[in-house]
Amino acid sequence: MAWILIVYATDYGNTRKMAETVADGARSVAGTEVVLKTAEEATAEDLQAADALILGSPVHMGSMDWRVKKFIDKVCSQFWMKNTAVGKVGAVFATGSGYGNVGSGAELALLSMLNNLADLGMILIPLPKDTEGYAKSGLQWGAYARSAGENLEQTGVSDEGLVAARRHGVHVARAAAVLKGKTIFG
Amino acid sequence: MAWILIVYATDYGNTRKMAETVADGARSVAGTEVVLKTAEEATAEDLQAADALILGSPVHMGSMDWRVKKFIDKVCSQFWMKNTAVGKVGAVFATGSGYGNVGSGAELALLSMLNNLADLGMILIPLPKDTEGYAKSGLQWGAYARSAGENLEQTGVSDEGLVAARRHGVHVARAAAVLKGKTIFG
Amino acid sequence: MAWILIVYATDYGNTRKMAETVADGARSVAGTEVVLKTAEEATAEDLQAADALILGSPVHMGSMDWRVKKFIDKVCSQFWMKNTAVGKVGAVFATGSGYGNVGSGAELALLSMLNNLADLGMILIPLPKDTEGYAKSGLQWGAYARSAGENLEQTGVSDEGLVAARRHGVHVARAAAVLKGKTIFG
Amino acid sequence: MAWILIVYATDYGNTRKMAETVADGARSVAGTEVVLKTAEEATAEDLQAADALILGSPVHMGSMDWRVKKFIDKVCSQFWMKNTAVGKVGAVFATGSGYGNVGSGAELALLSMLNNLADLGMILIPLPKDTEGYAKSGLQWGAYARSAGENLEQTGVSDEGLVAARRHGVHVARAAAVLKGKTIFG
Repeated sequence: MAWILIVYATDYGNTRKMAETVADGARSVAGTEVVLKTAEEATAEDLQAADALILGSPVHMGSMDWRVKKFIDKVCSQFWMKNTAVGKVGAVFATGSGYGNVGSGAELALLSMLNNLADLGMILIPLPKDTEGYAKSGLQWGAYARSAGENLEQTGVSDEGLVAARRHGVHVARAAAVLKGKTIFG
Repeated sequence: MAWILIVYATDYGNTRKMAETVADGARSVAGTEVVLKTAEEATAEDLQAADALILGSPVHMGSMDWRVKKFIDKVCSQFWMKNTAVGKVGAVFATGSGYGNVGSGAELALLSMLNNLADLGMILIPLPKDTEGYAKSGLQWGAYARSAGENLEQTGVSDEGLVAARRHGVHVARAAAVLKGKTIFG
Repeated sequence: MAWILIVYATDYGNTRKMAETVADGARSVAGTEVVLKTAEEATAEDLQAADALILGSPVHMGSMDWRVKKFIDKVCSQFWMKNTAVGKVGAVFATGSGYGNVGSGAELALLSMLNNLADLGMILIPLPKDTEGYAKSGLQWGAYARSAGENLEQTGVSDEGLVAARRHGVHVARAAAVLKGKTIFG
Repeated sequence: MAWILIVYATDYGNTRKMAETVADGARSVAGTEVVLKTAEEATAEDLQAADALILGSPVHMGSMDWRVKKFIDKVCSQFWMKNTAVGKVGAVFATGSGYGNVGSGAELALLSMLNNLADLGMILIPLPKDTEGYAKSGLQWGAYARSAGENLEQTGVSDEGLVAARRHGVHVARAAAVLKGKTIFG
């Protein structure tokens, strides 16, 4: 049994929808249990129990939402100090506008989360280019769904974004299952 | 008269000491006024009035402190929406441990702040390699002072870090004075 | 008189077209001279004479083209050693596909060039969100034009990309004119 | 049997020494074969045969050496186009000076390589903080050995750097063995 913890922040419900879809993908892998929590709800106990951590955030000014950062500073940092998340699996996803036609900070927002997971010593699962949905909603670092257009108008997350999110969840669950109990580090 | 706003978060007082030293440097340039506030105190009015914004943070898990991110999400983002910080001057600094002998996330922490300033349309002032103090306490993105050693033991910020911080403040104040009232963008 | 050096690599002529358009923008600012060279042609003498350096590249695997990197390693690094590019103005632009609907590495490609300019001690000119063309062809770090669609099919650079590129050239030329002869660092 | 391909560039032999040490670590894991090549020697056949790719570079101006980028642009990009490196294991290491006391671009140099590996769809192996040698020679993204001091004087790579490099090789070999033949993506 592999446990996947998904931690996210949401403003208009778009990132929540993505988080739920990542969760659906993960659950579709036999032997996977998923815990889905907002950044304000998730606790050290949740992370302790997890075999994989997936962080999701709206893109805010080119980096993650402050609530996700607060979760990292308050909860994850304890695991960094004690080296107790080393060898877990990590992955990220985001939502944001289409402003600038290139996602307006999406790439660095995903990276800002992934960087923290690397600090924890997690094995990182990217989003391969041949993933279903990627052509319209993917980045190398993880699934990314536009939730607004190039004039910042709200559009909701795209179908392709949800398809990519679901696959991302499948990938992480498989990786967690394969790596669980194996000694990679140390 | 150029106004410099310095916004920082601090845990043990090290980043505060750096912030005060950046402020001293800026004030040493004739015709400069400095407003120094924590990320929790600084307001939209402070940023509106400023010709330059300098952000400072401890390095937490390879990126900025969540309180600095909250200031960006809550205050700076309004300026992004309305394009009202375009053409101001921006710069960053940080403190952190010597863990890993390479600053343990210092570079990406500085970048995570700078990225937000670029989003605001600010002209960015890096820290040149020939700055006094750089050899022991500089990065291309801004001043960086170790406040802990390679075993995470507290050491306080180094003298070289304070020298580099002071020079950084001088540079930003000069740039703000030269660029104030000039049309660069639009 | 401000001299602007534009250095680029190109595969199919798209980045060349962008470079020429950035050059047009810069030349439209009275008192500006532009030198436009490929990364393989540009020399240390070109950079020595310049008040501003603008780097442009196709996005290749999420970072700059190797020829641009070779120019940086072979030519720019001499200036880093001797601190002789400190205080010049720097900026970047790129072209790439629309794959992933978020530019497929555009942001980190722009950053990979900008990072080198920061190392040189250059004052960095971002691309503000209210720049004409930005909504379809801008990123915080510089102008970005799609030259291929989400299935990697060639499309040529968009009109909006060229509009943003032209404005980027104007901005850099103005900044170079204002900052020329001023003491910011040291 | 897991095959590990290590590709590096070297100026003074420091990165070669690191590469050889990473190779020693990998070979110490039973059932591992290592191919060690410079960026100019490595071919598409080498990458095709490999279960894991480890890239190493000196830090040049805050990013990877141009020869490593050329290998990525010329060789790896073919695999990106055809999705034929998806699911392999990836990791990075670097050498550089102690200038600035924080590695002078080490973090972004490691990231610039890792970014390309993510684009290929590789599972990424970071360097956990509790790795032997990390306190003096580690970064979250991979092993990093100082080869010069804060005044840019040559020192050779540190013993701690070699210890961390060796462990990094062990980790990647173990991960490649565990993940070989498993379906994570698709």
